[in-house]
Amino acid sequence: MALDEGLNALTELLGDRLSRSAGDRDQHGRNETWFALSLPDAVAYPETTQEVSELVKICARHDIPITPWGTGTSLEGHAVPIRGGVSLDMSRMNGVLEVLSDDMQVRVQPGVTRQALNEDLRATGLFFPVDPGANASLGGMAATRASGTTTVRYGSMRDNVAALEVVLADGRIIRTGSRAKKSSAGYDLTALMVGSEGTLGIITELTLRLHGQPEAVSSAVCAFDTLEAAVETVQLTIQMGIPMARIEFVDALTAEIFNEANGTAFPHKPHLMIEFHGSPEGVAEASQRFGEVVAEMGGADFEWATTTEARNALWKMRHGAYPASIAHRPGCMGLVTDICVPISRLAEAVSEMRAEIDAAGLIGPIVGHVGDGNFHSVLLLDPNDADEMARAKALSGKMAKRALELGGTVTGEHGIGMGKLGYMRAEHGAGWDVMSTLKHALDPQNILNPGKLVEQPE
Amino acid sequence: MALDEGLNALTELLGDRLSRSAGDRDQHGRNETWFALSLPDAVAYPETTQEVSELVKICARHDIPITPWGTGTSLEGHAVPIRGGVSLDMSRMNGVLEVLSDDMQVRVQPGVTRQALNEDLRATGLFFPVDPGANASLGGMAATRASGTTTVRYGSMRDNVAALEVVLADGRIIRTGSRAKKSSAGYDLTALMVGSEGTLGIITELTLRLHGQPEAVSSAVCAFDTLEAAVETVQLTIQMGIPMARIEFVDALTAEIFNEANGTAFPHKPHLMIEFHGSPEGVAEASQRFGEVVAEMGGADFEWATTTEARNALWKMRHGAYPASIAHRPGCMGLVTDICVPISRLAEAVSEMRAEIDAAGLIGPIVGHVGDGNFHSVLLLDPNDADEMARAKALSGKMAKRALELGGTVTGEHGIGMGKLGYMRAEHGAGWDVMSTLKHALDPQNILNPGKLVEQPE
Repeated sequence: MALDEGLNALTELLGDRLSRSAGDRDQHGRNETWFALSLPDAVAYPETTQEVSELVKICARHDIPITPWGTGTSLEGHAVPIRGGVSLDMSRMNGVLEVLSDDMQVRVQPGVTRQALNEDLRATGLFFPVDPGANASLGGMAATRASGTTTVRYGSMRDNVAALEVVLADGRIIRTGSRAKKSSAGYDLTALMVGSEGTLGIITELTLRLHGQPEAVSSAVCAFDTLEAAVETVQLTIQMGIPMARIEFVDALTAEIFNEANGTAFPHKPHLMIEFHGSPEGVAEASQRFGEVVAEMGGADFEWATTTEARNALWKMRHGAYPASIAHRPGCMGLVTDICVPISRLAEAVSEMRAEIDAAGLIGPIVGHVGDGNFHSVLLLDPNDADEMARAKALSGKMAKRALELGGTVTGEHGIGMGKLGYMRAEHGAGWDVMSTLKHALDPQNILNPGKLVEQPE
Repeated sequence: MALDEGLNALTELLGDRLSRSAGDRDQHGRNETWFALSLPDAVAYPETTQEVSELVKICARHDIPITPWGTGTSLEGHAVPIRGGVSLDMSRMNGVLEVLSDDMQVRVQPGVTRQALNEDLRATGLFFPVDPGANASLGGMAATRASGTTTVRYGSMRDNVAALEVVLADGRIIRTGSRAKKSSAGYDLTALMVGSEGTLGIITELTLRLHGQPEAVSSAVCAFDTLEAAVETVQLTIQMGIPMARIEFVDALTAEIFNEANGTAFPHKPHLMIEFHGSPEGVAEASQRFGEVVAEMGGADFEWATTTEARNALWKMRHGAYPASIAHRPGCMGLVTDICVPISRLAEAVSEMRAEIDAAGLIGPIVGHVGDGNFHSVLLLDPNDADEMARAKALSGKMAKRALELGGTVTGEHGIGMGKLGYMRAEHGAGWDVMSTLKHALDPQNILNPGKLVEQPE
């Protein structure tokens, strides 16, 4: 059989770094969210680009699907090997290869996690800013075009990947981009690979852009009487050009959930969580200008997090919103929506989401990277209540459609994987066919993460 | 004949907006630089996306090449219809369709020039920042991934195009991107089209990102004793995170050329030209910090351009460096190099360029968008001196190779067109084959701007 022959050849290549153990397979068939278990036939742990290239050639020869695996923290089933084959676990390719301080860049292998990178960089005065909350691998973050709380200031993976090394579906190794800050030298293959979810190639090295650790940081929380006032504050702040490093919205239910999980005492109201980075003067000026906007919009006094510890606690709480929400309804399952709309339509979209959740009789806190127009509802569902599940999926579909009507996108940062395949035609029209054409051109056998992102044949 | 039949069908579609006049053809066969005249068989002036789509379908049916034309200001022969066919002049599609002030975006047709757009925006408090010097069309700027003096702060076209409407090689019309600030919804087709030089599709509409007109602007020039001191000042300024809106290097010969062309009295020394944008406090702070770096590096006192007029004169002078250089050597022809290197290697690269020009016995001022690591030498050549021309091309090739050794790119902003085709293999290796694969997948007949950017068959 082709599969057995292929796996034998892979064992020859990798030795005991090709695992067929039940435990390994089970671990790599699971997902953080609601996608069904789907086991790979084997899990591969390559250590070099050359090994990845050889592995891909073997898989191509034997028609074995390859699904790359970073840390498994994706939310849309990207890393689930739904057609079996090999789960390509990149965790052993976890070297920080070269810190290029003078250019504010770093070369890393794809298995390095963002926290590991930032620990490594601590002494350099530099940091890597993209922060999706989870301690994801940088290869996975690039593959899914991740973003997060700091994107309003530092951009997403689209903006922070300078160059890549990629293994293609036939085993060729290419380098995209360069270490220069810009280039007009042909098609932007780096941008094509970022967000391609492992369907066009396997990322084996990244050159990332770093930023200077800010001299001064100041974070605060403040409450608003209405959701609209909070979100309109964000719109106004952006239009005034006040430079924020983070600006997060949490609704009244989320404030309550924070209190349950962290013992805080936030009023049961919508809040904004904000952070400024810069020189002491710059931060002071931005804080003051933002304070004026807040006062104008009827926001409460700021609660400043003045120490590093208090700031870390604040953002840990924010990033812990998902598990805290799950804990709010014991035994529940979370379905997280991820729409992103133009800033001008944000208050409208968030209000509608709140109203739709309530009208559907669902429990769902709302949080959002509102500086980007991106927000999530975390629908807390009883997996045994088919009717509730159906209402949640209907709501999720309705809001995705609404995002498109407002000029936005069905996924701001979680990606397509399997979970959002059903919305691609609505978002891209014939553009989705173009994606299929590109996929077919670069992976005619459809062995790279098959079943994800592009339209599935037959 | 297929060509005649095709052109007849195009005349049916466009009436007298399909021109076969000698004057029109001559105008669209020329280039600003040294590429030979190559006439199109006809020039088409579409007015709608639908017309572009119909035109492409007719050309596909009759195998007629299509070369898009913006304003003809490209420097690498992008718009020269080297295989004849139709020159697709987008100048009649020049409407500003919708200013989306609240989202700081604008929808425009591709024939709008950047100056026309900024005049249109004047009353809104917003502006479009990308400034390559020439008053290029926005469609052309997107197609060539243009950048320029303000890219150090506001990014290039890569960063400032949110969405596109594109007509593909078979006439299909697609929309890429969205009005949301970010998205993870599949392959980044916008980024693929930006910089594709009309070889993958024809841009028929753009949604661009705008920026707030800065409250305060301050510009200055200062002289340095050595080229190295000037460039190292830039490196240091970037590493300190001082936010510049522009930072341009001009060498001693350019200062002399400025004096000749503008009646100024700059010392015969390397200079930096700088601009800060922001709040009055922010600009004052940045200027002061920059002043400290300059003093440390032995730079002369600033000459501040305090009025809008003085500022405009300063940047007009900078953007006029090319014609002024040409005038410096009457009867000469300019060959402009365009390498871009990592910031840490910039001083080294600029010094080498200066030394190489001198060693080759050539006349060539150097100017650069040094905040991006991008710089140009303008080689002033006697077109009748074959030996001089050969030395210039050898130098240009040598510096392109050097840029790659330093981790950079052979073209920071001028693009590939025909002029840089010969360096693509060296820069991209197998990645250039991937570009050919993508081109073939999306334009199997090779009718869209054939002969440019990708490897040419046979």
